[in-house]
Amino acid sequence: MEQIAYVNGSFVPLSEAKVSILDRGFLFADGIYEVAAVLDGKLIDNASHLARLERSVGEIELALPETTARIEEIQKELVKRNNLANGMVYLEVTRGADTGRDFAFPKNVKPTLIMFTSTKDIINAPSAKTGINVITVPDLRWARRDIKSVALLAQVLAKQAAAVAGAGEAWMIEDGKVTEGGSSSCFILTQDDVIVTRQNGSEILPGCTRKAVVALAEERQLRVEERAFSIEEALAAKEVFVTSASLFVQAVVSIDGKKVADGKPGPMTNRLREIYVEFAKATAV
Amino acid sequence: MEQIAYVNGSFVPLSEAKVSILDRGFLFADGIYEVAAVLDGKLIDNASHLARLERSVGEIELALPETTARIEEIQKELVKRNNLANGMVYLEVTRGADTGRDFAFPKNVKPTLIMFTSTKDIINAPSAKTGINVITVPDLRWARRDIKSVALLAQVLAKQAAAVAGAGEAWMIEDGKVTEGGSSSCFILTQDDVIVTRQNGSEILPGCTRKAVVALAEERQLRVEERAFSIEEALAAKEVFVTSASLFVQAVVSIDGKKVADGKPGPMTNRLREIYVEFAKATAV
Repeated sequence: MEQIAYVNGSFVPLSEAKVSILDRGFLFADGIYEVAAVLDGKLIDNASHLARLERSVGEIELALPETTARIEEIQKELVKRNNLANGMVYLEVTRGADTGRDFAFPKNVKPTLIMFTSTKDIINAPSAKTGINVITVPDLRWARRDIKSVALLAQVLAKQAAAVAGAGEAWMIEDGKVTEGGSSSCFILTQDDVIVTRQNGSEILPGCTRKAVVALAEERQLRVEERAFSIEEALAAKEVFVTSASLFVQAVVSIDGKKVADGKPGPMTNRLREIYVEFAKATAV
Repeated sequence: MEQIAYVNGSFVPLSEAKVSILDRGFLFADGIYEVAAVLDGKLIDNASHLARLERSVGEIELALPETTARIEEIQKELVKRNNLANGMVYLEVTRGADTGRDFAFPKNVKPTLIMFTSTKDIINAPSAKTGINVITVPDLRWARRDIKSVALLAQVLAKQAAAVAGAGEAWMIEDGKVTEGGSSSCFILTQDDVIVTRQNGSEILPGCTRKAVVALAEERQLRVEERAFSIEEALAAKEVFVTSASLFVQAVVSIDGKKVADGKPGPMTNRLREIYVEFAKATAV
């Protein structure tokens, strides 16, 4: 059965899921996206993703074409129509297709809303057991990384560099510190057992999984510090890991070819992963 | 008659000109564009636009799906099919639509090539006589502005701010100097009759019209200096203007509400505009 996608009010086969070449997502990257994980047919941490969606569209003055409650209904309907057990729902909202191309916001144009799903067994992903290698690249992105926009060319180039190097992620470096991964938030566990991750701000995306992991760790009286850290600190750390909606918590075992600790996922990473999976399942909708 | 667009080998009515929601232009801003002016049905300075297209796609390792010679044929065919006398041809190349969404480059996916036209009487545009107002905004863009990518959200926000302020362009400021306009190159004429425009580099797009105007000015023994300048210098200048493919040479008469010189287009701006129009007509294809 061909996969079903959602495009502006209709559920259509993915091969027929299209947008105008005048869509501002296509012409200007004038759009916002979110990716929510699916476990056993249920959406994970979706309220957090929809809250971030509302924040992002607000920052670029883009009105959602549907309420977030309706968006969640559509997400669920799409999961159902695709019989999706485990994977992700991608959603994108753009400022729509005007009759021509003008940078300034168009008037009376309805925003575009599209969704599609993909299959992935996040819990049993092989990399969860082995860990991933990361490389570092300069952070070339714009100044408003807190907005989850589709202007992702810098991330594409970063993650392509990682793929060429046989790595699973690229960590972006600015002023000697790690900002974040191409599509993940970065963490270290120091030798003093402090979980360190960069504080939110315009330099990074406020990760939903990052936020949940920090809260879950704090609830368990684990020590968390939100501050920038360097690659040198990461290489001297006990453990290194990343978080994202489609990875959950994922160990990093080398950086630029240098082994992290003993080169295997550490106990804190594994524990946080288990805690997150438990939270995810318990709160899935 | 409905406008005709070009999409991956076909000429289709604009209302049917669509791309997949999986197109990487739509998902990742993983695409490059060019806009060439049309005068009397002929393309202006198109070799320069196609050379820049080749450079941009090269910088992101995107292979053009057609030769530039063939692209020019398609541009001409589209101009003809739309009976376009004066206006622009927009073209965009993206890394195509894969079967799913993965940041790294897809394998064996044909790039997308689309084009459409728009009508504009560039030579007789009212603003050429009156000049335009500009506002200034911080330059929020990424570090590779020399690549003409569709990751244009920062420019959209800048030009929207200009529109709200009743201005025709937003000048972007970084480290106290002007980088460029949201979709134009910036020039001043100093009190010593030196034409100043920022030197090329990763901080700005190498403007095709900018390049032609600099060359035409130098051929006429006018003094040109390529260096960064500040808003204070612009406000103390004899004349201020911008260049772009869809404006040619366009006077700026105020910046952030402060009048430039006597608030009218100056003689050098008008002269350079005439010289450029002459060059454009003489070299049109």
